Amino acid sequence: MGFWGSFYIETFLNVDMYGNFRKGFLLVKLNLAQKLIKEHLVSGEMDPGTEIGLKIDQTLCQDATGTMVMLELEAMGVDQAKTEASAQYVDHNLIQDDHRNPDDHLFLRSAAKRFGLYFSRPGNGVSHPVQMQKLAKPGKTLLGSDSHTCANGCMGMLAMGAGGIDVAMAIAGEPFYVKMPQIWGVKVTGELPDWVSAKDVILEMLRRHDVKGGVGKILEFYGPGLKNLTAMDRHVIANMGAELGATATVFPSDNEIKRFLKTQDREEDWVELTADNGAEYDLHDEIDLSSLEPLIAKPSSPGNVVPVSELAGESIYQSYIGSSANPGYRDFAIAAEIVKGKSIAQGLSFDINPSSRQILTQLVDNGHIASLLSSGARLHQAGCNGCIGMGQAPASGRNSLRTTPRNFPGRSGTKEDSVFLCSPETAAASALTGVITDPRTLEMDYPDIKEPKVDFEKEEGMLEEPIPESEGINAELDKGPNIKSIPKLAPIENNFEVPILLKMGDNISTDEILAGGSRVLPYRSNLQRISTFTFEIVDDTYYERAMKQKDDGGHAVVAGFNYGQGSSREHAALAPRHLGLKVVLVKDFARIHLQNLINFGVLPLTFVNEDDLDKLESGDILQFENVRDNLPNSNEFEVGIKDKDEKIKVKHSLTDRHLDIILAGGIINWIKNKQESGV
Amino acid sequence: MGFWGSFYIETFLNVDMYGNFRKGFLLVKLNLAQKLIKEHLVSGEMDPGTEIGLKIDQTLCQDATGTMVMLELEAMGVDQAKTEASAQYVDHNLIQDDHRNPDDHLFLRSAAKRFGLYFSRPGNGVSHPVQMQKLAKPGKTLLGSDSHTCANGCMGMLAMGAGGIDVAMAIAGEPFYVKMPQIWGVKVTGELPDWVSAKDVILEMLRRHDVKGGVGKILEFYGPGLKNLTAMDRHVIANMGAELGATATVFPSDNEIKRFLKTQDREEDWVELTADNGAEYDLHDEIDLSSLEPLIAKPSSPGNVVPVSELAGESIYQSYIGSSANPGYRDFAIAAEIVKGKSIAQGLSFDINPSSRQILTQLVDNGHIASLLSSGARLHQAGCNGCIGMGQAPASGRNSLRTTPRNFPGRSGTKEDSVFLCSPETAAASALTGVITDPRTLEMDYPDIKEPKVDFEKEEGMLEEPIPESEGINAELDKGPNIKSIPKLAPIENNFEVPILLKMGDNISTDEILAGGSRVLPYRSNLQRISTFTFEIVDDTYYERAMKQKDDGGHAVVAGFNYGQGSSREHAALAPRHLGLKVVLVKDFARIHLQNLINFGVLPLTFVNEDDLDKLESGDILQFENVRDNLPNSNEFEVGIKDKDEKIKVKHSLTDRHLDIILAGGIINWIKNKQESGV
Repeated sequence: MGFWGSFYIETFLNVDMYGNFRKGFLLVKLNLAQKLIKEHLVSGEMDPGTEIGLKIDQTLCQDATGTMVMLELEAMGVDQAKTEASAQYVDHNLIQDDHRNPDDHLFLRSAAKRFGLYFSRPGNGVSHPVQMQKLAKPGKTLLGSDSHTCANGCMGMLAMGAGGIDVAMAIAGEPFYVKMPQIWGVKVTGELPDWVSAKDVILEMLRRHDVKGGVGKILEFYGPGLKNLTAMDRHVIANMGAELGATATVFPSDNEIKRFLKTQDREEDWVELTADNGAEYDLHDEIDLSSLEPLIAKPSSPGNVVPVSELAGESIYQSYIGSSANPGYRDFAIAAEIVKGKSIAQGLSFDINPSSRQILTQLVDNGHIASLLSSGARLHQAGCNGCIGMGQAPASGRNSLRTTPRNFPGRSGTKEDSVFLCSPETAAASALTGVITDPRTLEMDYPDIKEPKVDFEKEEGMLEEPIPESEGINAELDKGPNIKSIPKLAPIENNFEVPILLKMGDNISTDEILAGGSRVLPYRSNLQRISTFTFEIVDDTYYERAMKQKDDGGHAVVAGFNYGQGSSREHAALAPRHLGLKVVLVKDFARIHLQNLINFGVLPLTFVNEDDLDKLESGDILQFENVRDNLPNSNEFEVGIKDKDEKIKVKHSLTDRHLDIILAGGIINWIKNKQESGV
Repeated sequence: MGFWGSFYIETFLNVDMYGNFRKGFLLVKLNLAQKLIKEHLVSGEMDPGTEIGLKIDQTLCQDATGTMVMLELEAMGVDQAKTEASAQYVDHNLIQDDHRNPDDHLFLRSAAKRFGLYFSRPGNGVSHPVQMQKLAKPGKTLLGSDSHTCANGCMGMLAMGAGGIDVAMAIAGEPFYVKMPQIWGVKVTGELPDWVSAKDVILEMLRRHDVKGGVGKILEFYGPGLKNLTAMDRHVIANMGAELGATATVFPSDNEIKRFLKTQDREEDWVELTADNGAEYDLHDEIDLSSLEPLIAKPSSPGNVVPVSELAGESIYQSYIGSSANPGYRDFAIAAEIVKGKSIAQGLSFDINPSSRQILTQLVDNGHIASLLSSGARLHQAGCNGCIGMGQAPASGRNSLRTTPRNFPGRSGTKEDSVFLCSPETAAASALTGVITDPRTLEMDYPDIKEPKVDFEKEEGMLEEPIPESEGINAELDKGPNIKSIPKLAPIENNFEVPILLKMGDNISTDEILAGGSRVLPYRSNLQRISTFTFEIVDDTYYERAMKQKDDGGHAVVAGFNYGQGSSREHAALAPRHLGLKVVLVKDFARIHLQNLINFGVLPLTFVNEDDLDKLESGDILQFENVRDNLPNSNEFEVGIKDKDEKIKVKHSLTDRHLDIILAGGIINWIKNKQESGV
């Protein structure tokens, strides 16, 4: 049923505080986030904290995560994307210093043909602004294997970042499962003063709420001030919702979005979408744009925000313009107008990183690139570039001012870096002076930037269209020597014995399970190779021992509290699983790693009596009986310790969906079975 | 005395073929190369093959070699450059994935201040075209720590590549020593057909004479056809004189050079310079421009040249425009005109690498960058980039068409690469079709490119001027944590035994001795670290074996012809020397690498009987006796092969000056000794 009116009527059953049952019709006013969720809800109830399943209309992948998603689609036996539009971008690994990145680019293009995806080639730009220009549609859900996918919430979409396999499942037509967030209404009033821009709005939110302030929440912006923020301004704000830890950021689809879609020759994709009049929010906040001043996040957290004026005069090495956090034409044009006819400070690196080929072409056509170059700028190819540590690292101990979304320690590529986040106005003003500069102190009028028309004749080949399924099904995957298919993973047996190969303590992180960094990550598409690094930091004999045991029934590992904390990388589950890991038995799990273990069919168990960890040693053999039979029936069972004549009690907190996945041998087998049985 | 007339009168002493002494005045007609040498001769006679010393007027350094030059100047205690103009460019190591490259950039800028050099910041472009635009002067000598320094021979200069330490010596006011080359007159007639350009001229020379054809020679182009070649066309030809192995390439300073200098607002730097009428050459060649067709050098040597039409239809992954081998405005503009309004082949990487900020700005202002971008190009920052393996590596097993000067194996960054060298016309035509394409087969008129005026208002900060000595002497050197001093090197002993660690064939390039690329080059200021990559491409056990042998007397390597061809990087001598390399025994040497070996105190020997290479194996131990005593007395001596009961004859062609340097343990020890003894 349609529901995009002002009101939504539902039937409900309720028990009031006196225990009386009430049943009837009630007028429920929904905010926009609730409307988007309601429209896509396939399982669960909209009660904050409980699991809901959402239909996904669009997906995006970037190249750093995308190769594994494509290998997963291959392993799942998916023929064609089931979404309305799925796109594969190449924007992260653009530095080609050997064959691996260009091989990945070719693989991703072949996979886009094979699975019916849009493909954006290297140099076309960052996924988020290109998605916004070419594919984003109000009212749709978007799931992306990039944490800034939330940026497209600016278009009246429910846009969320997720792990690669979640996106693979969405492409395969499966729902996305997430805990129902609280909806956080942020009322916007007033108008931005000169020299203050959208970046300062989200920095103000970070100043108020810090980097965990949005966890478990959707930020929904509304109010009269929105008419003073363009679609791209809203992109800036929505993008850095990720820095607040939010599940998504939502803006209404109003006349400004209509105007934006018209510039992209997609006016027909517009639909008006706003919160119902009088809709309620779980949480409230308000921003008066008129009251804001230029802000800056100090090293090394996006939440470390102070007024620019407090730091004025500190010398800088670098001024960096670009990234998905300031991707708009105006973000570059205003920097260009500030430096036009002037020369940047000597010894300074002024790095311009266009966000999309469309915007770069517009900047060229309108003289802004000429202004930037003439001032002494370095113009880089369109892409994520230094924002994800791919080039433009700052010098040791020198300050770098960036319009990017993150300044976590070392993210710039320089280990002990000193990165500040700010608006293009602040970055460009500081490029001129060589010191941190409040742009309001420049002796010039605030430039008035007019957004130019898009010249679609210059957009040729910008996004390759999916080819028809009939052709795609025969398309070959183009795998360079560093790209290997995911081997088939066998489901767990009913009865088995596994030796404990590692006994670990508390707080084992995914970095200890499988390190990141430039030595390991280049093998992200080569499971066989990346597996050789598994647990290397904990015990460098693990790989060899696991390989010996691999065809002999696999193995288990045991550990203490908070197992699998840290990065969400799914390789930390997939790599040991590939080496025969069947069971992880610990005191408790970190949330995301637990999900990853389930996804790849590893049985995640916890001790009923935590002290039982002391009874176990590396080398002990664990005996499991009737596992497949017992798991669905009981949350608790006994495991034997061979040669010790002892048993310990273990438990699990797996849902029926989780159990289905584990008993299938992981989500890849699960969906394969599902597709083969035609369900 | 002045000599820039048509004739030169000298007093000479001669013995004729009948043994009669003749003394008197004789009218000697000089070619241009001889005039340039004569004017700068400080020692030796102009007899081909004998050593001459030349006064150096200008120097250039790029960043990959420059940090070492600056450390050497510091070690020598130099206060101020003694040349007329010395410049430090930052064009090689532009990929900043950690602190090292940006630290080097800051170090080089501080060194430019300290030693009174011009400084060109990252993003300003490749040294050779910028030097041509800003500093090159007809009649001057230019020595550069980059093998393509010869490019500025297009300006009527004697421009030569050399090792960094030679350039350091020149900056310190010392002469540059080189063997008097033969002068090879190349008469140019006719006019280039449509779709054939300067690159095809030098490819034709390489087709005829291969990569050793110019060794020990200066190419001097003259003749009526030159009026049809612009200054930048001549730059293309002069640049790739390096690929012929030539010492220099010389073009006259004629009205075209006057015109070029006028575009740079430097008309006053022009002086007419041509060979005397009737001047003679040691060698002769002739090129009729009208007879040329589009040519292409196949993998993996610049000498492997065939007509493009022979390869037409072979599919390509990449089309690459840029580098010092095709740096001109017209080289980019013609590519832009070819793809204008069209779309490049899908799946192809079309990489545009502007050669200087001046040219990039002109290309932007005249719509060419817009044409390139609209066709689907990736626009990179101005610099050397992929030409020296800094990004843009091709995919595995895929063909890459490049307008760069070199296609040595692996230079692109991809180990088993397949790189072709061609003109911008051929590269752009092939970008459209996705296969190797003879540009004459395009259905369009040959674009007519007009060189635009330079807008000097857009040149602000392009080249920082040297600061006065009184200020420079107090300037601090800005050394990041990866910049380390050069360890002291011990002089060779009188008697020693060294095992042969490597036996190699012909044409071993400095890329094979010590690779370039983003993995290796960042350690150029950290000898200990960069040494670990030595000979890795040839034999990746070398480093470990050399380290084992290092404190046990060192080692030797043996090889065939043209040892050390290619890049001038002195690390290719210094790194193996640091690992204990004492002797290199080969059939013959590439000139610059030979000089580098001498400079760092490695004994460079050649076989008396070239077949003796066959007698040697890796592992054989060479026995040297009374080396220090015998070297100055004899050019030929015997070397024992231990356990083989055999001796082979070896020779050297070292001058007394070379011997002094080698016996001192290298030029740093030599100049230190010289300064300490006050001579």
